[in-house]
Amino acid sequence: MNNEIKKNVPTVVIRRLPRYYRYLEDLLKNNIIRISSTELAKKMNITASQVRQDFSCFGGFGQQGYGYNVENLYNEIGNLLGLRENYTTVIVGAGNLGRALANHASFDRRGFKLVGIFDIDERIIGKKINNITVMHADELDKFVAENRVDIGIITVPRDNVKDVANKLISLGIKGLWNFSYIELKGNDDVQIENVHLTDSLMTLSYNIKKNSQEN
Amino acid sequence: MNNEIKKNVPTVVIRRLPRYYRYLEDLLKNNIIRISSTELAKKMNITASQVRQDFSCFGGFGQQGYGYNVENLYNEIGNLLGLRENYTTVIVGAGNLGRALANHASFDRRGFKLVGIFDIDERIIGKKINNITVMHADELDKFVAENRVDIGIITVPRDNVKDVANKLISLGIKGLWNFSYIELKGNDDVQIENVHLTDSLMTLSYNIKKNSQEN
Repeated sequence: MNNEIKKNVPTVVIRRLPRYYRYLEDLLKNNIIRISSTELAKKMNITASQVRQDFSCFGGFGQQGYGYNVENLYNEIGNLLGLRENYTTVIVGAGNLGRALANHASFDRRGFKLVGIFDIDERIIGKKINNITVMHADELDKFVAENRVDIGIITVPRDNVKDVANKLISLGIKGLWNFSYIELKGNDDVQIENVHLTDSLMTLSYNIKKNSQEN
Repeated sequence: MNNEIKKNVPTVVIRRLPRYYRYLEDLLKNNIIRISSTELAKKMNITASQVRQDFSCFGGFGQQGYGYNVENLYNEIGNLLGLRENYTTVIVGAGNLGRALANHASFDRRGFKLVGIFDIDERIIGKKINNITVMHADELDKFVAENRVDIGIITVPRDNVKDVANKLISLGIKGLWNFSYIELKGNDDVQIENVHLTDSLMTLSYNIKKNSQEN
């Protein structure tokens, strides 16, 4: 398909793509072949016109009168999301969070391949996590020189975040997925996704408080 | 202050509150007393008018001509987010992710108190994580009956998610922070926050792909 992608797609639209993708995956699993923007909107908790507006950023994804072909839409969005690029990842920081991410089945399923895990703790180095032997962080240079690594997942304590990020950037890694409190900034060469787990807990807390005031 | 909170604040605005809160915390730490909507907007990567529009949902938070008083704004937003309510949490599922969350310093700092950790694995039960002894999941009823528990954090394997969620809801817990792939739905009594870590990785992947096409 020759979808025209708008130059500046709003961040909020980009952030909805993974959700569309997940819902479409569920529809596919349930053998649903077509879905209207109205039905999709309901699942997404937005309006049908918002769905059509979102999709128009990427060329529209087919005729709205007949609804969308689920499989096509799933593939198109997966393609947009880079899930067919076979991006590889390394985890730096093999603590609880690093180990949890290493064992996270969804990443594999989505097409991300974990190729290396690094730490500086001698008690962890040499051990296997999800069939990958933990290497010393000093071996990062050599490893990245010899292997294609697209994404660095940063799960080190906050004091080490900047050093690790600078190291990964200097090695030419294209994207950092950063779980530390320290907010990293991207540039033309490196994309950054800062994850603040607490934001989600605070949103939950907002809703609990609001609900308790209304009842 | 007698801020009037609008009845239906858009989700996207609510989701920005934790980010405002974090930025304000940084400003406070740097002894910055006042900030204009323009400066705050820059940090947030949105427009100044968006900032004012966001704040108008909550009564405006003080005069915009003189900028906002950082400490007031920080406290007002913290209050909105329920961070002064001393909400308590339990973690169900003491695997890697559960342990990572149990050790996550930010939650404590934000005013969330972890009071219990539960699992069904006899090898983990009785062990301490962040000074809390892991209990058997069968003890949840008794524990919730005897202790105030506001939020249940669900980090169990996907097959157990629905049972655990139903159990926590039946015990009257007000909010669920769900890390499983299974999407839980809230109702009038229970608020749900589903966390899909992969969404964030897919967004990063989108940006990497887009960037590599432009360069």
